[in-house]
Amino acid sequence: EEFLETREQLQRLQNGNHLLFQQVPMVEIDGMKLVQTRSILHYIAEKHHLFGSDLKEKTLIDMYVEGTLDLLEMIIMHPFLKPDDQQKEVVNMTQKAVIRYFPVFEKILRDHGQNFLVGNQLSLADVILLQTILALEEKVPNILSVFPYLQEYSVKISNVPTIKRFLEPGSKKKPPPDDTYVRTVYTIFAP
Amino acid sequence: EEFLETREQLQRLQNGNHLLFQQVPMVEIDGMKLVQTRSILHYIAEKHHLFGSDLKEKTLIDMYVEGTLDLLEMIIMHPFLKPDDQQKEVVNMTQKAVIRYFPVFEKILRDHGQNFLVGNQLSLADVILLQTILALEEKVPNILSVFPYLQEYSVKISNVPTIKRFLEPGSKKKPPPDDTYVRTVYTIFAP
Repeated sequence: EEFLETREQLQRLQNGNHLLFQQVPMVEIDGMKLVQTRSILHYIAEKHHLFGSDLKEKTLIDMYVEGTLDLLEMIIMHPFLKPDDQQKEVVNMTQKAVIRYFPVFEKILRDHGQNFLVGNQLSLADVILLQTILALEEKVPNILSVFPYLQEYSVKISNVPTIKRFLEPGSKKKPPPDDTYVRTVYTIFAP
Repeated sequence: EEFLETREQLQRLQNGNHLLFQQVPMVEIDGMKLVQTRSILHYIAEKHHLFGSDLKEKTLIDMYVEGTLDLLEMIIMHPFLKPDDQQKEVVNMTQKAVIRYFPVFEKILRDHGQNFLVGNQLSLADVILLQTILALEEKVPNILSVFPYLQEYSVKISNVPTIKRFLEPGSKKKPPPDDTYVRTVYTIFAP
């Protein structure tokens, strides 16, 4: 796992034709150089049986992932807003989460009666939803307070052994973005 | 096929629990109410054999679609920019198309030697790329001038019988967005 720290690193990847559309992220896997965030997620999910057991389950997972990504993208872009806009955007993200997205997943978990969003096994939808919940809780610690099923779900998914290891100190999980991260991103990508 | 014209229509769909995340587009198909643009595309592509013949082809199609959608999204948002920004954005989109995306697809078509981007049959990647080319040509008629393979490809895909019918006058294809369209969208969605 390599992270860009300089503009030259990005240019080397671009000049070496390693990036189909000149952009990161890129994942080298099974003889392919995968690009585009969703394509990377889809390939790994298909390969590792995280995409449901039939087309109907896959479509549910896809819809849940797409909805959750709309929320997660707001969180990912948040550090790059002007300071004055950051607090407003936390309010906006919290509203979107609490009014639009979390009630849907709370109801799914309640109706479905399983530990997972789709079927009875872990899927890409669970991974992306947990990532989004944890990222939001870093900004709004009590954001799940009126969602008891999501609270329980969040604890259970966090305890899936592979996920538990990823969440433990010393893992490859990155810390929340800080000023150094934001400066580095601007240095590499600013036109 | 129903298009929203009033805010009340949207609210009826929302209040009737027809929209998973309170948003359109929504497609009713096979007993499901599909939402999220990509999920709708993926389901129809899977069902109608437009997603390749194996996981490797599917992953190529997915990457090409995701790259092209990044470009198409710029085109879709263009009518909603302030008038002063619209001309600048046409320059920006044209540069992105001509520098980042079209050279990739030109090379794929040249190397691959087939009428289609992946394998030897029509896929979602072809449909989305043709849609994007046609939308860009409405703004920049000669945008393919230095891409001979894409020119030939664009003509061939336009002549696939189902696509040819869709592009003919009187079909369900929508005209380019005009001021009435922009006003209608603002009326329905403005907070």
